[in-house]
Amino acid sequence: MKKGVMRPGHIQLRVLDMEEAVAHYRDLLGLIEVDRDDQGRVYLKGWTEVDKFSVVLREADSAGMDFVGYKCVNEGAVEQLRQELIEYGCKVEDIPEGELKGCGRRVRFDSPTGHLFEIFATKEQTGKWEVGNHNPEAWPRNLTGMKATRFDHCLLYGPNIAGTIDLFREVLGFDLAEQVLDGEGTRLAGFLTVSMKAHDVAFIEHPEPGKLHHASFFLETWEDVLRAADLISMTDTSIDIGPTRHGLTHGKTIYFFDPSGNRSEVFAGGDYHYPDHEPVTWDADKLGKAIFYHDRVLNERFLTVLT
Amino acid sequence: MKKGVMRPGHIQLRVLDMEEAVAHYRDLLGLIEVDRDDQGRVYLKGWTEVDKFSVVLREADSAGMDFVGYKCVNEGAVEQLRQELIEYGCKVEDIPEGELKGCGRRVRFDSPTGHLFEIFATKEQTGKWEVGNHNPEAWPRNLTGMKATRFDHCLLYGPNIAGTIDLFREVLGFDLAEQVLDGEGTRLAGFLTVSMKAHDVAFIEHPEPGKLHHASFFLETWEDVLRAADLISMTDTSIDIGPTRHGLTHGKTIYFFDPSGNRSEVFAGGDYHYPDHEPVTWDADKLGKAIFYHDRVLNERFLTVLT
Amino acid sequence: MKKGVMRPGHIQLRVLDMEEAVAHYRDLLGLIEVDRDDQGRVYLKGWTEVDKFSVVLREADSAGMDFVGYKCVNEGAVEQLRQELIEYGCKVEDIPEGELKGCGRRVRFDSPTGHLFEIFATKEQTGKWEVGNHNPEAWPRNLTGMKATRFDHCLLYGPNIAGTIDLFREVLGFDLAEQVLDGEGTRLAGFLTVSMKAHDVAFIEHPEPGKLHHASFFLETWEDVLRAADLISMTDTSIDIGPTRHGLTHGKTIYFFDPSGNRSEVFAGGDYHYPDHEPVTWDADKLGKAIFYHDRVLNERFLTVLT
Amino acid sequence: MKKGVMRPGHIQLRVLDMEEAVAHYRDLLGLIEVDRDDQGRVYLKGWTEVDKFSVVLREADSAGMDFVGYKCVNEGAVEQLRQELIEYGCKVEDIPEGELKGCGRRVRFDSPTGHLFEIFATKEQTGKWEVGNHNPEAWPRNLTGMKATRFDHCLLYGPNIAGTIDLFREVLGFDLAEQVLDGEGTRLAGFLTVSMKAHDVAFIEHPEPGKLHHASFFLETWEDVLRAADLISMTDTSIDIGPTRHGLTHGKTIYFFDPSGNRSEVFAGGDYHYPDHEPVTWDADKLGKAIFYHDRVLNERFLTVLT
Repeated sequence: MKKGVMRPGHIQLRVLDMEEAVAHYRDLLGLIEVDRDDQGRVYLKGWTEVDKFSVVLREADSAGMDFVGYKCVNEGAVEQLRQELIEYGCKVEDIPEGELKGCGRRVRFDSPTGHLFEIFATKEQTGKWEVGNHNPEAWPRNLTGMKATRFDHCLLYGPNIAGTIDLFREVLGFDLAEQVLDGEGTRLAGFLTVSMKAHDVAFIEHPEPGKLHHASFFLETWEDVLRAADLISMTDTSIDIGPTRHGLTHGKTIYFFDPSGNRSEVFAGGDYHYPDHEPVTWDADKLGKAIFYHDRVLNERFLTVLT
Repeated sequence: MKKGVMRPGHIQLRVLDMEEAVAHYRDLLGLIEVDRDDQGRVYLKGWTEVDKFSVVLREADSAGMDFVGYKCVNEGAVEQLRQELIEYGCKVEDIPEGELKGCGRRVRFDSPTGHLFEIFATKEQTGKWEVGNHNPEAWPRNLTGMKATRFDHCLLYGPNIAGTIDLFREVLGFDLAEQVLDGEGTRLAGFLTVSMKAHDVAFIEHPEPGKLHHASFFLETWEDVLRAADLISMTDTSIDIGPTRHGLTHGKTIYFFDPSGNRSEVFAGGDYHYPDHEPVTWDADKLGKAIFYHDRVLNERFLTVLT
Repeated sequence: MKKGVMRPGHIQLRVLDMEEAVAHYRDLLGLIEVDRDDQGRVYLKGWTEVDKFSVVLREADSAGMDFVGYKCVNEGAVEQLRQELIEYGCKVEDIPEGELKGCGRRVRFDSPTGHLFEIFATKEQTGKWEVGNHNPEAWPRNLTGMKATRFDHCLLYGPNIAGTIDLFREVLGFDLAEQVLDGEGTRLAGFLTVSMKAHDVAFIEHPEPGKLHHASFFLETWEDVLRAADLISMTDTSIDIGPTRHGLTHGKTIYFFDPSGNRSEVFAGGDYHYPDHEPVTWDADKLGKAIFYHDRVLNERFLTVLT
Repeated sequence: MKKGVMRPGHIQLRVLDMEEAVAHYRDLLGLIEVDRDDQGRVYLKGWTEVDKFSVVLREADSAGMDFVGYKCVNEGAVEQLRQELIEYGCKVEDIPEGELKGCGRRVRFDSPTGHLFEIFATKEQTGKWEVGNHNPEAWPRNLTGMKATRFDHCLLYGPNIAGTIDLFREVLGFDLAEQVLDGEGTRLAGFLTVSMKAHDVAFIEHPEPGKLHHASFFLETWEDVLRAADLISMTDTSIDIGPTRHGLTHGKTIYFFDPSGNRSEVFAGGDYHYPDHEPVTWDADKLGKAIFYHDRVLNERFLTVLT
C-alpha cells in the first residue's frame, strides 16, 4: 500500500438480463444484494466486506466489464494519485460523489490495455453483513449458495500489458507478485498485488483491448470449492474448469460462466506476498501447469472466451 | 454379506515394468510394500487393512487385471459358494494355499464379462499398519504419497454385464446399489456392494471382454484428494480427470494412470448402502452427470482407454 | 448382519419441552421434521435416511431414552429373533403396527443394563430427503443447522454390560468392534457394530440402570464438526466437549446438550469394521485417551451426567 | 505498512534443553532447521518464509521470550523509526550485523509492558523452502510434523498495555484490529496488525512485565489443526486447549506447550484487516467467548500460565 491504494473496491459488470444476473451473483455466488439505483443497476457485496458494495451489475447489450475501482486510504491519496496519473499520461475523468449510491467521488483513468480503472477513498461502511464488529459471530447464518466472502480480483486481457503493469507499479504502488515469461524474457502475464494477497489484479497479453477474463470471489476452504462445484451442477450453470488448483498463486479454484457469458471464479487459499518478495516466475513452456496445476494443459476456452 | 462374502480382498494387476509400478503404487499412492515372491510379484496393502496384502503386481507383457478376489467369512462359506458357482455354470479352478504368500486356498471362477474372480477366506492378518489394535493411534506417522487407506473396488468393462451382475447378485449375495438404464430399461452400468460401501465392484457394458477400467483406493477426505492431485502434478504422472465428484455414489475422486497404462482412482466419501435400499438409477441421457458430476460430460478416455 | 439385523432404525427420546426440543433436533441439528402423532410425539430423520423417521421425541417429566429400535432385513428375521430373545430370557413385548406412524410391528425386549430395545422390519420408505434415488443430486439445498445426515448410534450406561453385550452378540448378531479392559481383563466399555460402522451401539458399565449417555448423529466432514461447534456457540447451546477426536473409533466429534439435558453428539469419520476384525482394545489406564484422544483426560461430566 | 514495518521477522525463545526444544519446534511443529551459531543458538523457519530464519532458540535457565523483531521495507525506514523511537522515549540499542547469522543490523527497544522488540530490514533471503520462486510446486514433499508454514505472531502479557499499544500504533504504524474493553472502556486486550493479517502482535494486561503467552505458527487448514492435535497426542505433548476457534480473529486453533513450558499455538484462517476497518470490539463480559469461541469460558491456564 505504498502509494495509499488499499484494495479492489468495486467492479461494474455488464449483463444482458438483470434478473438472470442477480440469480447468478446473489443466489448462486451468495453475494448480498444491498441496493438498486434509478439506472436499474444492482449493488452487491460479499459478507466479509465492510463497505456498502463491491459488485455493480448494469444491464447492457454486451457483456463485459465497465470498470474496476480501487479504494485508497484517504482523499488525499486519491488527489495525489490523480495528479500522478495525469503526469503519467492517463486520460483522467472525475466521477462525482453519488454516481454510485453510497460512494464518494471517483477518479477514472484509462490504460494501455484498454481497460478503465478508478480510484476512490469514500464509501458508506455498512460493516460485515449480519456480523458487524461488536462481539461478532464467526459467520452469518443466512448465507445462500456459494457463500462468497468478497470480491477478490479480476483477470484482464488486452494488448501492451507491459504498459498497464508499469502504470500499476509506478503510479499506483502495486507489486509484481507473479509473472509468466517467454524464452526471450517477454512478460506474457503479470499478477499484481497491493497488499498481502496473491493478486489484486492480473493481466494477460492479448490483441483485443479491454477484455475481461474473469471476476473472482473468495471462499474460505477447498471444501467450499467442492460445494460451489456441486451447486454449479445442481443449477445447470455453465462450467469452465475445476475444481482444481492454479500453479500461479496456488489458489484452489473453479471457473464458470454467468448467464451473460462473463466468467466467474470462486477460489480459496493462495500464496501471500510482502513487498520484499521477489516475483514468482513461471516459464511460458510451463504455462499449462502455471494456469491449471493438475491438468498441466490449457483448455482452449482459457485463451479465447472473453467478454 | 448374506452369502458370506465380506469385501474385496485383493487384486492382481499386470504391469510392464515392476520398479516403475512399485514407484506408482507404493511411493505415489502410498500403499505399504509388504512382501515379494519368487515369481517376482510384489505385495502391497493400504494402512487400514488388517490382512497382509490387497494388491499384487505381476510384471507381464500387457497391462490389465489378472483377477480380483473377495474375502469370505469362513472356509465353509467358500465351500458352499464353490458348489453354487459350479451349479450356476461357472468354470471353477482351485488355487492351492500359498500360491499367493500368506493366503489360503482360493476358488477362481470365470464370468460372462470375461473377468476372472476369486473367493477365499484365509489370509495372514498383520493388522493395521504401524497402528495395530491395542490403544491404536489415529494414523501411522510414516505414510508417504497419497496415503491410500485401502483397496476399495474396481470398475470392469466387458460384454454381457447382465450375466456377471446376475452371478454376483444371485450366487455371491451382492446388492445392486446403483445403475444406469437406457430408454429401453437396458442396464448399461451396475454398481454392486456386499456391505455398506457404495460399491465393492462395478461393471460397464463394453464389447471387449475382461477389461479393467480402474482399480480404486480409498482416501479419508476431499483435502486428501487435493493433495493426491498435487502429487500427480509434482510427479508428472499422467492424469485422466479430477479432482471432481461422481454423480454415481457421489464420491469425490481423481483418475490417473500407472506407468503401464492401468487407470488408478483415489476417492473419498460416497453414499452408503443397506440391503433394504432401492437401487439408485441414473438415466443414460444423464450419463455425463452420473460419471462426472461437475462437468456433466464424459471425456472420451472414460469409454475407450482400458487395460 | 449375520442374524438379519441391519442398523439402528429409531430412538425415542424423552424431552421436557417439545418446542424447545424441536428447535434443538430440527433447527440446530438439522434433522427433518417428518410427522407428529396424536400423542404429540414428533418424528424426525436425517436427510440421507431412506426410512420415514429415525428420531421420535416424546414430551415427559424426565429426560432420557424410552427405547432404541434396530431394523431387520425382513419380518422372518424379526420372528426368528423374537423366539431367540424369549429363549435367551428376555421379557418380550409385541408393539402393534402403527403405534409409531408409518412403522410396522415391533418386538420390544429388556436387557441386563435396564434398557429397552426393539427390532422391526417394516417402515414406510420415503427415500433420501429432497434427493431421492433417480438421478440424485449430491445433497439437498434446503438443509439447516448442522445438516446431520443420520441417526448413527447411542451410548448407553448401565450395570452388567457383560450381559447386554452378550445378548447383542449372541442373539442379535452384533460384533464387538472395540472395548476397554481393566487390568483384570474386565470389560468396562464395549462398542458393538452390526455392519461396517465403527459402532451401532455402545455400553459403559455404570451402577444406575437404563441411562442414556448420548444419541449420536453423523456428519460428513471435520469441517462440518467445526460448523456444528460454531452453531453451538451462536445458539448459546450448552456444550460438553469438542471439537475433538475419540481414541475409540477415531471419530471426530463434539458433545453438547439438548434443552432437556440429553447429550447429543455429532461426529464424522471413524474406523470401519468387518466380521473378521479382531476387537480393538484400549487399556483402562488409557481411558482418557480412549475417550478424548487430544486431551487424554476425561472431564467429570463424561462419567456422571446422564439422562 | 504505513511506517515501513512489514511483518514479524523473528522471535528468540529461551528454552531449558536445546535438543528437547529442537524436537518440539522442528520435528513436531515441522519448522525447518536452517542453522546453528557458536553461541549454540538454533535457527528455524516455516517453509513458506522467504527469509533465512524466523525462530531462534537459545538455551537458558528460564523459559520465555528474549525479543521479537519486525522486518521493515528498507534500511531507511529502520533509521527513521530509530529516531522516532528515541523521541518517543524508548531506550534504543543497536545490535550489529551478524549478531544473528544472516541478519543485518537490528535496532532493539524497550516498551511499557517490559518486552524487548527489534526492527531490522536486512536478512539473507533463501526463498520458500524446497519450492523457491521459479515454477514453484504447491508445497514441499519432505515436510514433517504439523507442517507449520510461518511464524505468525505472539501474544504478550504485561502491565500498561495502553503504553505499548500506543507505541506500536503511533511510532511503528500498526493498526488496532481487535480489542477487549471492560465496562468502563478500559482496554484489557489489543490485537495489532501491520498488514492484512488478523494480528501481527497482541497484548493482554497483566501485572508481571515481559511475559510471553504464546508464539503462534500458521497452518493452512482446519484439517491441519486436527492433524496437529493428533500429533500432540501421539507425541505425548502437553496440550492446553483445542482444537477450537477463537472469537477474537475467528482463527481455528490449538494451544500446547514446548518442553520448557513456553506455549505454542498453531492456527488456520482468521479474519483479514485493512486500514479503513474499524477495530472489532469484544466486551469483557464476553471474554470467554472472545478467547474460546466454542467453550465460552476461559480455562484458568489461559490467564496464569506464562513464561
